[in-house]
Amino acid sequence: MAWIGGEISASGLALWLLDGANTVLDRRTLRLDALSLTDEGLAALLADLPGVADEGLPTVICGAGRDLAPTRAVPCAPLGPPQVRGHLHLLPGLHQASPADLMRGAETAIAGLIAAQPQFDGVVCLPGPATVWAQVSAEEVVSFRSFLTGDLFALLAGSNALQFHVAPDGWDDPAFDTALDETLSRPASLSAALAGLPAEAEITGLSKTEARARLAGLLIGAELAGAKPWWLGQNVAVLGDDALIRPYLRALHAQGVPAHGGDRGAATLAGLCAAKARLTGQTQ
Amino acid sequence: MAWIGGEISASGLALWLLDGANTVLDRRTLRLDALSLTDEGLAALLADLPGVADEGLPTVICGAGRDLAPTRAVPCAPLGPPQVRGHLHLLPGLHQASPADLMRGAETAIAGLIAAQPQFDGVVCLPGPATVWAQVSAEEVVSFRSFLTGDLFALLAGSNALQFHVAPDGWDDPAFDTALDETLSRPASLSAALAGLPAEAEITGLSKTEARARLAGLLIGAELAGAKPWWLGQNVAVLGDDALIRPYLRALHAQGVPAHGGDRGAATLAGLCAAKARLTGQTQ
Repeated sequence: MAWIGGEISASGLALWLLDGANTVLDRRTLRLDALSLTDEGLAALLADLPGVADEGLPTVICGAGRDLAPTRAVPCAPLGPPQVRGHLHLLPGLHQASPADLMRGAETAIAGLIAAQPQFDGVVCLPGPATVWAQVSAEEVVSFRSFLTGDLFALLAGSNALQFHVAPDGWDDPAFDTALDETLSRPASLSAALAGLPAEAEITGLSKTEARARLAGLLIGAELAGAKPWWLGQNVAVLGDDALIRPYLRALHAQGVPAHGGDRGAATLAGLCAAKARLTGQTQ
Repeated sequence: MAWIGGEISASGLALWLLDGANTVLDRRTLRLDALSLTDEGLAALLADLPGVADEGLPTVICGAGRDLAPTRAVPCAPLGPPQVRGHLHLLPGLHQASPADLMRGAETAIAGLIAAQPQFDGVVCLPGPATVWAQVSAEEVVSFRSFLTGDLFALLAGSNALQFHVAPDGWDDPAFDTALDETLSRPASLSAALAGLPAEAEITGLSKTEARARLAGLLIGAELAGAKPWWLGQNVAVLGDDALIRPYLRALHAQGVPAHGGDRGAATLAGLCAAKARLTGQTQ
């Protein structure tokens, strides 16, 4: 029997239409305001999908906000019992009391990684608007910590102060490496280094492409300085799109960490399949 | 003879209309796009001021961008020869080769402080979109460093991630103090502490007012960690609006630094008067 898997994130609602053997038949991405999404809004959104919703297909969705699905306290397995609303199954996120932190969606990618590698013991790093670092052992998320790196990059790259100095795309490895070393060794230098970017463009001829890589390097270096317990001497898997994980892998490899990368979408889908298998187990 | 003083900043063009004895007759603030302002645009703007421009009053303006006025290399006196365009006198900013940095407008406030206290020997801290720390000795700016604190606060407070968790105004001293200590002692914790704000709101009940003060404390703590050579054991003057300088003074006093505050607008005006006196000296 066909079913739908989905993930709500800041960039919208990603949907997979799958058959009973979990083969992907179709993919869709819907824009939505994740912050103000209600039960009814989500149901209506899904009901509007042509050729899909009439049939009331079982639908498993992760990443829903606090108004739609509760969170579970770590340490715990990444997948928990969903909130059930008719054919709609909303997977709970995770929370941590101290330091206070929340994870909504990343737990399903972690579940997918565990489904593929049940013996995985180490740290999963998931870059995004916030980058999540999660300690995984014995098929459980032991603890985790989020860093605002992706959001800071987007905010700064589009800011009045920097928008004319930072290219919208492109990359420069040496500029990234230099910046990474600066804030990884001296995280207190971040704020001054950010303020100095326009001056470097004007005085030392820093190009917009170099500035873009430098901005990423400064932010990821500061993150790695704060996240050191999460990667130093650890077995690290970095999950994300290629463009997102490449700078993290480069930075970790430069520190001598043999981190390996993986596709986050594939991991999330695998996690959704694992969640769907449990539903089937419960209801059949 | 009457004249006009002004400062261009990210928030617009602040203008003072003064008589020959430097008594302020009127104040205006004009919105403008500081980043794309040209000579002609500025002249047209001033020509449109009713009851002022017809007379071609001498006009002294600081804070102009790279296309309007050059910058001078520190160490040097804060005031230098203006770019003259008819009755319009544009004061040059300052630059520093290494670490690369720029100052446009703050040098005039520093000149005003020196005009009032020629013996001042210490550090001037000027909070704004970027906070400038300048070492001043023997009536010269010896060196300076900018930190992106104000811009980061505004960007984060208005961001998707934090806007529903941070109050638009209000304050909470304990929340500020705790956050300040966190990042001043461990600047690497900034990015995770920022990402954790929504979780603290949801899990530990952090109020929006507390979150606002906490955000300011985290950013100023990280700045003070990076700016330590600028305040530790230094004679520090903090110039700005009351709301801007109060958290800096509180933070510095908590570190045992006997910093004192001053009004930046008054200092800038005093600096413009000093610059005007030189013009008069030159042209009469």
